[in-house]
Amino acid sequence: MSPETGPDNLSRGYIVPIGGAEDKVGPEAILKRFVQLCGGRDGHIAVIPTASELRSTGRRYEELFKSLRIGKVSILTFETRKQCEDPEELAILEKATGVFLTGGSQLRLGTTIGGTSAAKTIRLLSERGVHVGGTSAGAAFLSEHMIAFGEEGSTPRAGMVTLAPGLGLTNRIVVDQHFRQRDRLGRLLTAIAFNPFAVGVGLDEDTAAFIAPDETLEVVGSGAVTVVDPSRIEYSSLDAAKVGDPVSLLGVTLHVIIKGGVFNLHSRIASAAGVPAEGE
Amino acid sequence: MSPETGPDNLSRGYIVPIGGAEDKVGPEAILKRFVQLCGGRDGHIAVIPTASELRSTGRRYEELFKSLRIGKVSILTFETRKQCEDPEELAILEKATGVFLTGGSQLRLGTTIGGTSAAKTIRLLSERGVHVGGTSAGAAFLSEHMIAFGEEGSTPRAGMVTLAPGLGLTNRIVVDQHFRQRDRLGRLLTAIAFNPFAVGVGLDEDTAAFIAPDETLEVVGSGAVTVVDPSRIEYSSLDAAKVGDPVSLLGVTLHVIIKGGVFNLHSRIASAAGVPAEGE
Repeated sequence: MSPETGPDNLSRGYIVPIGGAEDKVGPEAILKRFVQLCGGRDGHIAVIPTASELRSTGRRYEELFKSLRIGKVSILTFETRKQCEDPEELAILEKATGVFLTGGSQLRLGTTIGGTSAAKTIRLLSERGVHVGGTSAGAAFLSEHMIAFGEEGSTPRAGMVTLAPGLGLTNRIVVDQHFRQRDRLGRLLTAIAFNPFAVGVGLDEDTAAFIAPDETLEVVGSGAVTVVDPSRIEYSSLDAAKVGDPVSLLGVTLHVIIKGGVFNLHSRIASAAGVPAEGE
Repeated sequence: MSPETGPDNLSRGYIVPIGGAEDKVGPEAILKRFVQLCGGRDGHIAVIPTASELRSTGRRYEELFKSLRIGKVSILTFETRKQCEDPEELAILEKATGVFLTGGSQLRLGTTIGGTSAAKTIRLLSERGVHVGGTSAGAAFLSEHMIAFGEEGSTPRAGMVTLAPGLGLTNRIVVDQHFRQRDRLGRLLTAIAFNPFAVGVGLDEDTAAFIAPDETLEVVGSGAVTVVDPSRIEYSSLDAAKVGDPVSLLGVTLHVIIKGGVFNLHSRIASAAGVPAEGE
């Protein structure tokens, strides 16, 4: 269950959380990039539509990835915990060069896949170099600590966010999605305040963080990624706050990064597209 | 028209922007503190209800301040630019120990009071030690650069905020009000990105920043003040962004400060209630 955190595991695959509502009819920058990453015509993407309650979701992504010229798409049926142990489904999963988790409910993902052979297999594949992407709920689920649910608003408040264990591909980030569209800075700040080890990654819709094996996060898509770096936090009142109280947080570093910009999760240095990062 | 910016003008009065919807029936912490600051039973608060279109607004604050035991309250009628030159009204204003601007529309404040003898008198009074507070639109109007209007959302976007000249009591801050309640981080970030000289001060409802003559900002009330310090910004894409584009901002320092916490606008150091500030 231990996540891959070392910056030196250069054989790991990309981890690609997407903020939801990614473009599906226009330039499709994010999905196109994901397809290329997974090998294009030689690639094989396993789509896991578990988060969605719509039966059509898997088929929709199958068509999308095919139109973007991926070699093969498989839709895996992990609707029950029992299915997550099905040797036939797992055998297909093991042949994938990319895994994609659709949107829906991250709690459905956690309760259905968590602790099963399917979850274990995805972690092992990621360690071996397979790329794993997810959109919306699928994005939230990728990391070790996921935001299960929470309230809106930009001021952090005690009790406004509930964390739950996620898939565990990395513990360096806590992801929040539909970020600008649903006013989620407060809950992301509250989430990272619990333990200012992880970096908060707030993804706007149609915006993705492509996290390379060397822990460089690159922004792709039409919106922004809000990176909340707690490493300089001097003070937090979270431990003393009652539910509903505003939480004081002093010294948060915030980067708003648009397409082409990068943030290094190891060095904590941000840089814009075409602008060299400043040394420390 | 030059604002008071020197940290050494220790004779200046307090500047007190309030985030709107301040408590009027419970502990009334903010208004009570303002009354005490203005001299309590020996004080005289001039209420300027220009921002409001409701005739009852002035009377409401008159009753509130009287119930909090201020010595005297005057309601000034500055409904037209001509009235802002009325010697009788100005004579009353000059005797005040505190000035209070109500909520409503900051554009109504700007277009009615801006450039008149009333505005000039309030600036002179502030320099001489008279305390000036304002709530909601009245808070936005206090500083040299005010947010006239803008859009919601936490990601900064080009064109999402329109700045206008304000009353000019200080140019060290740009204020935004109803902060958490109306999801205004994006527009505040956009506003400070224009010129990362000023500090963004996002005020939740029922929350005030009491800015002392020594440039120490203290938080009073039930919410939080989000301080956006741009002094470490390494990169901004604002100059190149088209209207509607997300704006990249790298290296923003963010403090969420609750009651009793302070931020020094001169040294840019934040500290929580009862916690000594760290030296640089």
